[in-house]
Amino acid sequence: MALWYYEDYIPHYRLGLEIKETLFLGNSLYQKIQVVDSYLYGKVLLLDDIVQTTEKDEFMYHEMLIHPALLTHPQPKKILIVGGGDGGASREVLKHPVKKVKLVDIDSAVIEISRKFLPELGNWNDQRLEVLVEDAVKYLALSEEIFDVIVMDSTDPLPSGVAEPLFSKEFFQSVYDHLSEDGVLVSQIEPPFFQPEREQRHWESLNMFPLVKVYWGLVPTYPGGIWTYMIASKGKDPAASFKKLSFPTRYYTPEIHRAAFALPPFMQERLSKKP
Amino acid sequence: MALWYYEDYIPHYRLGLEIKETLFLGNSLYQKIQVVDSYLYGKVLLLDDIVQTTEKDEFMYHEMLIHPALLTHPQPKKILIVGGGDGGASREVLKHPVKKVKLVDIDSAVIEISRKFLPELGNWNDQRLEVLVEDAVKYLALSEEIFDVIVMDSTDPLPSGVAEPLFSKEFFQSVYDHLSEDGVLVSQIEPPFFQPEREQRHWESLNMFPLVKVYWGLVPTYPGGIWTYMIASKGKDPAASFKKLSFPTRYYTPEIHRAAFALPPFMQERLSKKP
Repeated sequence: MALWYYEDYIPHYRLGLEIKETLFLGNSLYQKIQVVDSYLYGKVLLLDDIVQTTEKDEFMYHEMLIHPALLTHPQPKKILIVGGGDGGASREVLKHPVKKVKLVDIDSAVIEISRKFLPELGNWNDQRLEVLVEDAVKYLALSEEIFDVIVMDSTDPLPSGVAEPLFSKEFFQSVYDHLSEDGVLVSQIEPPFFQPEREQRHWESLNMFPLVKVYWGLVPTYPGGIWTYMIASKGKDPAASFKKLSFPTRYYTPEIHRAAFALPPFMQERLSKKP
Repeated sequence: MALWYYEDYIPHYRLGLEIKETLFLGNSLYQKIQVVDSYLYGKVLLLDDIVQTTEKDEFMYHEMLIHPALLTHPQPKKILIVGGGDGGASREVLKHPVKKVKLVDIDSAVIEISRKFLPELGNWNDQRLEVLVEDAVKYLALSEEIFDVIVMDSTDPLPSGVAEPLFSKEFFQSVYDHLSEDGVLVSQIEPPFFQPEREQRHWESLNMFPLVKVYWGLVPTYPGGIWTYMIASKGKDPAASFKKLSFPTRYYTPEIHRAAFALPPFMQERLSKKP
């Protein structure tokens, strides 16, 4: 008998993956956590029944989340990752010659389950990585540390979800205040055609930054097949900061970086002006 | 009670759309034809249970199928469309100052149903358009006409499907022979991660052309969310033929054209060499 997992994320739309087996199913303090082994995408991590990352295509998401931001800062040394408990974002950051990476995730269970079932996603033993199990809102409110790049790799801002406070105007101001002179913020946002109102709110919350841009990349497991990212810079233009990297990549190239900022008119219309 | 349509196209993967109602369901001589009204994508045309086009995102597919090819030929006057019975490809071609467009589709029922239920897809009354209900393989074998651009807008080459003969080495040779000196062929191919062997076969079948390139574009309703196109040119380089169009578009821009040819390394690996 075939076993199917269905994701009901976008209204009136459903994604189905045929599953070999469920490797883990449990509840943390914050959310339902599940790891399944799928035929098409290998192991899949789900939080509250939403696909977060899959073995087969996580590299597309994590490379595009990290490399444009790290190249936009002229010399990124201190990096903060908000969320990112699966380890993929910090793994990509650590490929750069950074000095310190702080990963602040509220849910230790996501980190433990990811390390156990998706160990290839993380580079957990790198001495430059410090993992803090904390609420990022409180963490930043109490900290005076300054970062060169802040990466938001959280779940989506669902009204009742654990990540909702991370998408408030106040939190973005706090992020801005914790960024160095040429500091860069990058966040995953949602696919552009399903929920434009969330994209718009995010865009407007970043109006303290002199430069805010949207770019996109392929992630076949996400609804609609692409994912969009919003990047805000105090200094260099992210769209012009493409560069050949000194390590191998499977998705990122300077040409892809440049191409990712070319948006079709139906997306541009909403986002061509400064927020 | 909710009514869901599920597409089982890629093994172990399923796309579900919630449907308001079925507008048409019948069988032609060649295939099952269905038009449904969906909440998310408006009206959807399905052939043999596979989504072909939807009201909401058909512009993304048709603009990217047509404009790069029409701009690659220095002066496209005579255009052949193989398939394209829904009318979208010819509608985009007719926005250019072409003299003659021949649409050769084997299945008159697809044309009739599309004209009735998706009339906004076509520009059926343009005097430059000639519609022929014929097998394109036989049509080209018997014709001595020469075209500047040939567009393949058929269903996919499923082993038992009506479009299978359109993907033979012999047919591509026949297409080549019916192209003018700077002639261009463009075909939709499939998303690059699910069925690389079909892409490879297509690539190798085009080795008589001096230039063959792959590019991609977004089509949220298709599995994986992007679609790839293969373009073969006897003359100009398609990747360098981007240009501002004289009419409005919702997806195509010169920047998008250029960006569409930037492929991530995991796709490039297979297709960087001449076939």
